[in-house]
This record gives sequence, C-alpha cells and structure tokens, in this order.
Amino acid sequence: MTTFIDVDYGYQNPDLNLSQEDYSLLTDLYQLTMAACYTGEGIEQKRASFELFVRRLPDGFGYLIAMGLAQALEYLAKFRFNSAQIAALQETGIFTHVPDRFWSLLAEGAFTGDVWAVPEGTAVFANEPFLRVEAPLWQAQLVETYLLNTINYQTLIATKAARLRDIAGEKATLLEFGTRRAFSPQASLWAARAALAGGLDATSNVLAAIQLNQKPSGTMAHALVMALSALEGSEEQAFTAFHEYFPGAPLLIDTYDTVAAAQKLALKVKTGEMKLTGVRLDSGDLVSLSKTVRSLLPDVAIFASGDLDEWEIQRLKTEGAKIDGYGLGTKLVTGSPVNGVYKLVDIDSIPVMKMSSGKFTYPGRKQIFRAFTANKLQADKLGLSEESFSEEKPLLQLVMKDGKQLQPPESLTTIRQRTAVSVASLPEETRRLENPISVKVEISEMLQNLTEETKSQY
Amino acid sequence: MTTFIDVDYGYQNPDLNLSQEDYSLLTDLYQLTMAACYTGEGIEQKRASFELFVRRLPDGFGYLIAMGLAQALEYLAKFRFNSAQIAALQETGIFTHVPDRFWSLLAEGAFTGDVWAVPEGTAVFANEPFLRVEAPLWQAQLVETYLLNTINYQTLIATKAARLRDIAGEKATLLEFGTRRAFSPQASLWAARAALAGGLDATSNVLAAIQLNQKPSGTMAHALVMALSALEGSEEQAFTAFHEYFPGAPLLIDTYDTVAAAQKLALKVKTGEMKLTGVRLDSGDLVSLSKTVRSLLPDVAIFASGDLDEWEIQRLKTEGAKIDGYGLGTKLVTGSPVNGVYKLVDIDSIPVMKMSSGKFTYPGRKQIFRAFTANKLQADKLGLSEESFSEEKPLLQLVMKDGKQLQPPESLTTIRQRTAVSVASLPEETRRLENPISVKVEISEMLQNLTEETKSQY
Repeated sequence: MTTFIDVDYGYQNPDLNLSQEDYSLLTDLYQLTMAACYTGEGIEQKRASFELFVRRLPDGFGYLIAMGLAQALEYLAKFRFNSAQIAALQETGIFTHVPDRFWSLLAEGAFTGDVWAVPEGTAVFANEPFLRVEAPLWQAQLVETYLLNTINYQTLIATKAARLRDIAGEKATLLEFGTRRAFSPQASLWAARAALAGGLDATSNVLAAIQLNQKPSGTMAHALVMALSALEGSEEQAFTAFHEYFPGAPLLIDTYDTVAAAQKLALKVKTGEMKLTGVRLDSGDLVSLSKTVRSLLPDVAIFASGDLDEWEIQRLKTEGAKIDGYGLGTKLVTGSPVNGVYKLVDIDSIPVMKMSSGKFTYPGRKQIFRAFTANKLQADKLGLSEESFSEEKPLLQLVMKDGKQLQPPESLTTIRQRTAVSVASLPEETRRLENPISVKVEISEMLQNLTEETKSQY
Repeated sequence: MTTFIDVDYGYQNPDLNLSQEDYSLLTDLYQLTMAACYTGEGIEQKRASFELFVRRLPDGFGYLIAMGLAQALEYLAKFRFNSAQIAALQETGIFTHVPDRFWSLLAEGAFTGDVWAVPEGTAVFANEPFLRVEAPLWQAQLVETYLLNTINYQTLIATKAARLRDIAGEKATLLEFGTRRAFSPQASLWAARAALAGGLDATSNVLAAIQLNQKPSGTMAHALVMALSALEGSEEQAFTAFHEYFPGAPLLIDTYDTVAAAQKLALKVKTGEMKLTGVRLDSGDLVSLSKTVRSLLPDVAIFASGDLDEWEIQRLKTEGAKIDGYGLGTKLVTGSPVNGVYKLVDIDSIPVMKMSSGKFTYPGRKQIFRAFTANKLQADKLGLSEESFSEEKPLLQLVMKDGKQLQPPESLTTIRQRTAVSVASLPEETRRLENPISVKVEISEMLQNLTEETKSQY
C-alpha cells in the first residue's frame, strides 16, 4: 500500500519554543495547500465567511463562556509570512506544482478581513457562533487552526472557572494552581488568564500574574517543611521561618500530622507569637480535618487543595467542610476539550453547508439573538445576520474591520464581570452540575428556509 | 474571614506569549518564596535531591513512556534571572521581608546541579523516578514547576502515541492532527514532538514539522470541497483542482455523499485521468464505508479521522475496516494528564520522606534496576543509587553535571526506536488496552530498611 509520507528523523536540535513571528506557520499543512489550490483556481480573493462554534457542549456542561478573543485578534493583527518562513515552506517540496502567485500572495499578505464575535465572558450554547471571519478566502482559510486552538482552550478554562465560582460562592477564594499540570508552559499562561477572566481570584503562576498585572498567589510546599525539619529539627521551625519572611502566606500543615500541626500553631497564635492568616490542607479527609482545624484556629482562613473540581467543592460544602479557599490545578487546566469547529458558511455571497453524516452545519452568516426578562435569559434565536428583532439583543459584534481592531483589548475586570453577569442570567437548570439542561436555541424562520433551500441544491 | 489576596484587574494589554528568557519566571510563586526562606535561614546552598515520578499510572495505562527530557535540560541550561525579572518580583510587594542576599542570589545564579534521568523513550512505572535533580536547595526547588510541566505533558503524549502504534501495527500510517484542539499553540508543538518520538509518522503542524526537520503531512478539508463546489459547480471540480496542485495528497470524500464521491474518483482512476494515492474518511460508519471504498478504489490508501483513539482503532481493526492510516487529534493531545510529582528525597545527605495521608514517598536517592530475559522485561527493582546488582541494568543516567549537559540532544529517530524497543519488551498484559496490569516494582532491601528507619524518625 503506498502512502504519502516521507519522514526524515535526522534533526538534532529541536527548538519547540515560540516567538510571535512563528505564529503564521503554526497551522495545519492543509490550510496552506488549500490556500495554494484557491490561488491556482483564481478564487483566493473571493469573500468567504467562516463561523466558529461547537456542535455539542462538552459532557456535563450546560453552557460555555466564550474566551480567547483577545489572543485571536492579536494573532490576526500580526499575521504575516516573512521570507525565511516562505523559504521553509518551499523547501518541504510539497508545493512544487503551485503557481508562483501563491508565494507573492504570502509575501505581501496580511489579514485584511472583518471579524464578528461575542464579547469574552458571554455564555454561548451549541450551534451558536462565537466568532465569524469574513475575509478573502485564502486568509480566512489559513487562520482556522490558530483561532480554534486559542478559543477552544481558553473557553474550556473560562467555563470551568465560571462553574467553580458558581458552586463555591462569591465569598470563597479560588486560586489557580495548575501550571505544573498544564499542557506546555504557554498553556499555563493562557489557563491563568482564562481562569481569572472566568471568575478565579488569583494565580500561582508568577509570569502569568506579572503579564496580567496581577499579584501572584501561593502558600508553601511540603519540601520546605521536610527540608527545614531535617536541617533545623522540626516542622515548627519550618512554620516559624516561613512566617517570618512571609507573614501573610498560609502555612501547609499536612506534611506529617495535620491535627498536631494545627495544635502547635494554635498555641503560637494564642500566645501572640504568630499572627497567622491562613493554613492549607492538601490531603486527608478535608471535611473532618477542616472542622478540627477551624475549632483550633477559629480566625484563620483554611485553604484546601488536591485534585479539587466543582463537584468536589459541592460535596465539601454539602458536608459542612470549613473551607474558605480552594486551590484548583489539574482538573481545571486539563481534561476533555471544547470541540470548537470553524466552518465555511458563505462563499462569494453563496450560502453553503456541510452535509457529512452527523456533522451537519447551518448555512449563511448568522447572528445570535438573545431575549432577556429582568436580566434573566429568556430565549435564544439563531438567525441570519441581516435579520433584526425588536426585543432580542444581537450578540455578535464587529470587532475587527479590514484587519484593524476596532477597540483596545478589554480589561480582565470587564471580562470577569461580564462572565458573572452571564452566568447569573442563566436558568438554574442550565447552571447546575447534575444533568444540566442547556438553553434551547430556536432557529429563525429565515434560517430554516435558507437551510432547506441550500440542502436542496446538493 | 480574612484572605491574603489583593487583586488588581487593571491591566489592558496582556501578552501571553513566551520568549525563552521568560521561562525562569514561569514557576509557582511558592517556589520563589520558599527559595527566599531558605536563603533567610542560610540553607539555600545545602545539597538537595528531588525526584520526579508518578504515584499512580493514569487510569487504563499499564506503562508510561518518559518524554520531555530534552526541553527540561534546555530549560536548566538557560535558567537565569535578568534585572527586569528581579524588579518585577520586587514590585509584587510579596518579598518585603526577605534578606537582600536573595536578590543577589537570583541575579548571579544559574543552574549548577546534576541531573540523572532515564533516556527519553524508556518505559517507566509508578514510583519509578524519571529524573533526579541534585543541586543547591534553592535551585532544585525553583525548577520544579517547569520540569513537571514539560515532562508531564510530553510523557502523556508519547505514551498515547506508543499505545496507538502498538494497536495500529507497524504498517499503519499514523498522523498527528491535534493542533486545533491542543491546549495552546506551544502545546501543539510539544505534542507533535512527543507524538513523533512515541511512534507516529508525521504531523500536520507546519511549524512543528519544520522545527523538527520533518515533512509536514495533511490532506484537505471540507471547506475546499464546499468552496469549489459552490464556485465551480461540483465536488469533482474540487477533487480535480486539488489533485492538480498536490498530486500526492489524499482527497477528502465525505463532504456530501462518500460512496458517490468514491465512485466518481474510481472512474477517473480507471480512465487514467487521475493517479490517486489516497482518500480520507472523516465521518459515517468507517467499517462499512472503508470496505466499499476499498472495493471501488483497490489501490488507493484509505485514511480515517474523527475523534479516533487507540480503542477505536482496535475496534475498527477487529471489525475488518480497510484503513491504512489514521489521523489522530483531539484524543491524542487532550484528556487526563500524567500526574507527575517532584519530591525532596535527600537534603544535606539526610534522607527524607513525606508522610501525608495517601501521599507517602520513598526516601533517599534511588535507582531503577531492570532485569531482561531475551529482550523482555523480567523484573524491576527500585533501590538506592549506591546499590548495584550484577544482572540488572540501572536506568537512570547522569545527563547533566554541574549545570552542563553531558551529551548533545538525541535525534527523534533514536528516541522513536528506543520507544519501540521499550514497548516490545513489555509483557502482553502490560501492553493491552483492557485492564492492563502494570509491572510490579520490587523495593530493594536497602530501600525498605531506609524507609523504615526514616519513618521512625518522625
């Protein structure tokens, strides 16, 4: 059986880090081969509209919080191919049959299209576009991979963060601790941003916090207790030393015997030797331990960590655990993805749709129309972009025109507040963890008609 | 309840991209506060040994393929703090009580320690260290977060790739298509590397392929079929055009009617109008469709894609699907993580261990001793690094001495071959997908004794 792979495993020094100018090559090969094919056929400048949406919500999710637009727009604004990148593509030997015009297109090209998007922090449901790109076909095609990468991941993290905040309540402190388990260093930065924008209070990731103008957050690790116990004689020495340099930081008390550690600290607090603000529990029965620790240290914040997620926080609260803050890591930053797709819906003013088994898409440029009653989401209608309804608010906004961003990036505060308002607007059945029922999206009559009409043409 | 968080959401222009010099700040805050505490206590230069391992294998896994060492060593070799980074740390206001010596330590510091590691592509099991860092305490502590991030993710991907290759067989073509679902752009690069090193043939990620000196791979997307159908009249036009520019690339035939598309192509192949090498199926019943397509296009490679994983490939093979290659995306690059941890095992020649409930660790610097019989893994023993056994091969090797790398990075070919040999050496019960039984790791008598002795000192 012939295959088309010609693999050479000779390279010695892979550099798998990123610089901004690498981003235009961070795409699937077929985006480039298709763009070359469009150029060969002379249709590369035809106006194309692609929409980004999910066909289904992830299992157990009633809604998604759209996130990642800021990074998507930054990418589009900087989209370029330099001569080294073009030479690298030519050297692959894959493009030997494409017209020369393809190379001048890349060399001269930038993103010149329009982008419509829902603001970051907006709740969206299955089949509702988060974003639409309207651009010359070759550009709209090439940017697919990066836009999906950016928006899929940040949307997943923001949605989990919003669920965590919803379950934990406004008063709980929620800390993002996922860097060591995030899927690459850059993933940890993007996770931190999306987590804060989705409702968490702070991140332990120092670089992310500095880039986002936030104060990083953290406690201490078992290693410190173990090292100072071994070198200076006791766990108490470790507490005293750390507290001296970081009087505001919580102490980790589960390295050896949690209750014994809390008792020793209680004595120090009572005698005024230590002004303790917080402790962290990272193992054991968090319900009973937190109650014991609260009784011993009544004015000290108790933080919990260790594979926590929204389900576990709900259980801890239900069982009366005395916990003021949660460290969220592994289960926040990893797991099943948001499976966003990016589909052609209109080419040269011809609405198109995909008919593949189980992967049907609605044709045409669309708009989400959302009706509210007293700040509560009443109904969602998916219609065509040219439709308008008196009561419903259109959610997709023009955010980039002719390749130029129309507004400066929003602050994290703005996005975080929008997320909170979005979640609060949802029906209880959509917010709950157990078998959430998503908001039913009505299809407008015009979109229904267009769908039937388009279908009949295949 | 007081908390220690002081959040300022005022920043307007987050830059969540990475440059190499950012990496030293890509760490959890507590690594820096602990390093400062060690400095305050005057113990920052004490020799510390930390080991990286998993307590449990991920659910359903019988082994792990260690990966990510090359990037870990690159990070250690470049580990530095510049003055802007130090100023940024000082501006957080978190370090106001630490001695000035901490700042000179960071300013002058580099990584000067030793690293022992198993070579990339080695199979490892629960409690076996992939890597040990022996360094001044402050350095060994600070590098934890990045080392875990790097090794956890690449090990996950390499292990999945090894399982995919094991199930699909040597002749199958396995393509990495995960970029759009990877958790950040950098994650897609690291996933591509680990997937190729773990046994896949090629990646669709153009940047990753170029960095790794590989030829990128890919087919075509539904958008091309939809655009050319709309503008030029038919799916056939789309096939003819794409084939003209990329005669070696497989055609995607499931946009409208898979069998009808295959029939049309069969006619073109029969008349000699088209020298078709491959087609791709992305939806529908892959078993029956692949059989039909094979009967219509007997000499054409059939590629399948669409949420495939090792389980689905096993099912397709069992049910007699006629598939020559698989595109692996979402389920390869996302999902539950490898939960590696990095634990202090020795400080200033004092072996230490963690006793937290359910999170017990073995004390002391360790070595993995592996016994083989005719290239088959016979038994694994976890012992102390100073032990030696005549029959068993010690797996951890010294790869960095006093901060200097001892060998140049290995080629992907070398690592890929080692992965294949490692998997082939495992018992059938460890390789199988259904309830795999991991290799039992024996604890040497010396390590047992040290563990009892260390325990008794707490």
